[in-house]
Amino acid sequence: MSIESFANQHVLELVAYQPGKPIEETARELGLDPRDIVKLASNENPLGPSPRAVEAISRAAAGVNIYPDGAAFRLRSAIAEFCGVDFGQTVVGTGSSEVIELICHALLNPQAEVVAARHAFSMYPIMARLFGAAYVEVPNKPDWTHDLNGFLDAITDRTRIVFITNPTNPVGTVVGQREIDDFMAKVPDHVLVCFDEAYREFSDNPPDTLKFVREGRNVIVLRTFSKAYGLAGLRVGYGIAPEAVAGMLHKARAPFNLHVLAQEAALAALEDQEHVRRTVENNAAGMRFYEQAFRDMGLEWIPSQGNFILVKVGQGKKVFNDMLAKGVIVRAQDGYGLPEWIRISIGTPAENARCVEVLKEVL
Amino acid sequence: MSIESFANQHVLELVAYQPGKPIEETARELGLDPRDIVKLASNENPLGPSPRAVEAISRAAAGVNIYPDGAAFRLRSAIAEFCGVDFGQTVVGTGSSEVIELICHALLNPQAEVVAARHAFSMYPIMARLFGAAYVEVPNKPDWTHDLNGFLDAITDRTRIVFITNPTNPVGTVVGQREIDDFMAKVPDHVLVCFDEAYREFSDNPPDTLKFVREGRNVIVLRTFSKAYGLAGLRVGYGIAPEAVAGMLHKARAPFNLHVLAQEAALAALEDQEHVRRTVENNAAGMRFYEQAFRDMGLEWIPSQGNFILVKVGQGKKVFNDMLAKGVIVRAQDGYGLPEWIRISIGTPAENARCVEVLKEVL
Repeated sequence: MSIESFANQHVLELVAYQPGKPIEETARELGLDPRDIVKLASNENPLGPSPRAVEAISRAAAGVNIYPDGAAFRLRSAIAEFCGVDFGQTVVGTGSSEVIELICHALLNPQAEVVAARHAFSMYPIMARLFGAAYVEVPNKPDWTHDLNGFLDAITDRTRIVFITNPTNPVGTVVGQREIDDFMAKVPDHVLVCFDEAYREFSDNPPDTLKFVREGRNVIVLRTFSKAYGLAGLRVGYGIAPEAVAGMLHKARAPFNLHVLAQEAALAALEDQEHVRRTVENNAAGMRFYEQAFRDMGLEWIPSQGNFILVKVGQGKKVFNDMLAKGVIVRAQDGYGLPEWIRISIGTPAENARCVEVLKEVL
Repeated sequence: MSIESFANQHVLELVAYQPGKPIEETARELGLDPRDIVKLASNENPLGPSPRAVEAISRAAAGVNIYPDGAAFRLRSAIAEFCGVDFGQTVVGTGSSEVIELICHALLNPQAEVVAARHAFSMYPIMARLFGAAYVEVPNKPDWTHDLNGFLDAITDRTRIVFITNPTNPVGTVVGQREIDDFMAKVPDHVLVCFDEAYREFSDNPPDTLKFVREGRNVIVLRTFSKAYGLAGLRVGYGIAPEAVAGMLHKARAPFNLHVLAQEAALAALEDQEHVRRTVENNAAGMRFYEQAFRDMGLEWIPSQGNFILVKVGQGKKVFNDMLAKGVIVRAQDGYGLPEWIRISIGTPAENARCVEVLKEVL
C-alpha cells in the first residue's frame, strides 16, 4: 500500500504556485541568448540589488561555514529601529511568505478559516490549504479595491487570519487609512489581521498600520526585501507584531531559518535608502510611460500603486505566449481569475520600451 | 481575549531548539575579541567553505534581485547525478531540517506518531510536536547505537515517520548494513523511514540506503551541505526519495524555498570533492588527537564516526561554562539527557590543542 494513502490529504490536493517564467528556462526552450530576454514577470527590482548589499555578500562569503545567528540579532535590531518598534516585535523569514507560514503554523488547522480578497497574492490559499484550513474569498469592489465590509461579513467564529494586501498584487490598488481604521474598530478578537505590505515603498501615501502593533492589537505587518530593496533571490522578509503574536511565530520558527548572507545583505540594503529612492523614482517614471502607451493603444488598465500594472489585452494567455516567443516574459493572469489581463512588472526604460513594442506587435 | 487562546496549543507548548553559542554573542558577553574565541560547538567545517563555493557566491551576488529558480534545476540535476538517482527523486531545502519539516507536513497530524532514538538530533521532537504528533523515544543500546528491534516494537498503526540517524548526533555511532537490511525487511508499509545522513562523509563505511530509494521503498535519505561541505551558514540540505514521496514534499514546499546563492554555492561545493577529502582527513587526524588526549587524561569517550566527539567530564554544564569563560565554546549535553558529557566538534589542529589545554585547566 502506498505511503500517500497515509498522508495528509489536504497536502496531496495542493496545486503548486505558478512562478514567473525564469529567464534561463525561457532561453533554453526558445534557443535564445538569456541576455536577449526581458523578464517583467515577477515584480523584481530592475535596478538590481543595492551595491552595498552586493559588497556585504562578498565580504561575508568566506564565513559561510558557520551557522547563522539564529536570533538574527543585528538585522532584527536594525528593522526594529527602522520601524520604530521593539526588537521583540520583529520576526524574519525566508521571504515574507515564510512569515505567513509561521502565522499559519500558529493559528491554522482543519477547523480554521482564512479570509482574503478574491484578487490577492496566490500564496494565501496555498498556505491556508497546506494546513487544511478553509479559504474564503471576498469579491473585490468595482474599483478593484478590497471590500473590507465584505470581509467583516465573511468572518465567522472559525476565522483565524484575515489578509489585507496593501497595495494588493496583482491589481495594485490600496485601501486607505479611514477604511482600515473602521475595519479595525469592528474586527473581532479571535482574528489575526495580517497587513501584507510587500509593495508599500511604491505607494504614495501608505496607511499607518504599525500603530496597531504599538496598541497591542491582534495584527502583523509583513514587509519584504524582495521588491524595492532588490533582494528577491536571497529570500528575506519580516513581520512586525505585538510581542505575544511574534512570540508564537518564534515558537514555530526553525532555529536557523534565515541564512547568513540574507542577514548581512538585508542589513546593508536597509541602510541604503538612496537605492530605494532611485528604485521608486524609476518605477514612477515607468508607470507613467505604460499609462501613456496604454492610452495611445486604447487599452484598459488598472491604476496601480505597486511596481506592476494590469492591462486588459483580450486573450491574456495567448498574448503572454506570443510575447514570450519574442523574448519578453510578462505574467498571464488566468491563475488569478483574470484571463483577459496580463500583468507587467515595471522595468528599466529600455525594458519598458521593448515590452510596449512587442505588445503592439502581438496585438 | 488574547489571540493565544485561539492558537494551536501544541505550537505554544514548543520548547525552542538550543543552538551552539555564537562567537559574536560570546565575545559581547565576555568582552573578548571574537578572533580569540574558539567555537567547537556546532559541528561546522573548520577549514571553511570550498573556495569554489566562495567564488560562486561572489559571481552571483550582483544578480540577487532576481527570484531563484524554484525548481533548483541545475543543483538538483547535479545532486541526482552525484547520487545516481533521478531528478524527480530529489528535493532541496533550507538545510535538511526544512526537508524534515516537509516530511512532517505531508505525514504528521495530532493523530500521528514519530519514532526515533533517545539520543538523536533534537530537532526531531521539535518538528513532530510542531505538527501536534506524539514523539516516541527508543533507548539506545549499551554501546550507544540505535536499537532497531526496539524501533520495530515501538511502531504502531499511528506511526508515520521513523528517524535513523547515521552516524547519529550527538553520540557519533553508526548502525550497519545488516541491521538496516533486517529492519527494512520488517518495517510496515505505513511508515516512512528517514535515514538522516548529515555526517555520512565522516564515517568509514557508511551503509547503502539509496538502494531502498531505487527499490521504491517508503524511505527518504537526508544529506546536507552544512557539515563536510562547509556551507552551514547558507542553509542547504537535500532529500533523496522515490518520486511518490518526493512529490508529496514538493507539494508542501514553498515555491522559492532555496535562495539563489545557496543553489550556486552548493553546486560549486559538490564539484569540489577535493575540499571534502581535505575536510575528512583533517577530521580523522583531529579525532585521533582527542582520543589520545582523553586516554592521557583518563576520561571516558564514545568512539565517533562523525565530526564531533562526546566525552564524559562529570558536571557537563559546569565544564561548558568554565571553558566558555576561557573563550572555548563546546556543547553542553543536558538538553540531550547526557548531563555528565560535553560534545566537542573537531576543529583545526590549533583549535583542538587549545580546546584540550583549556579542558585540562578547568577539570
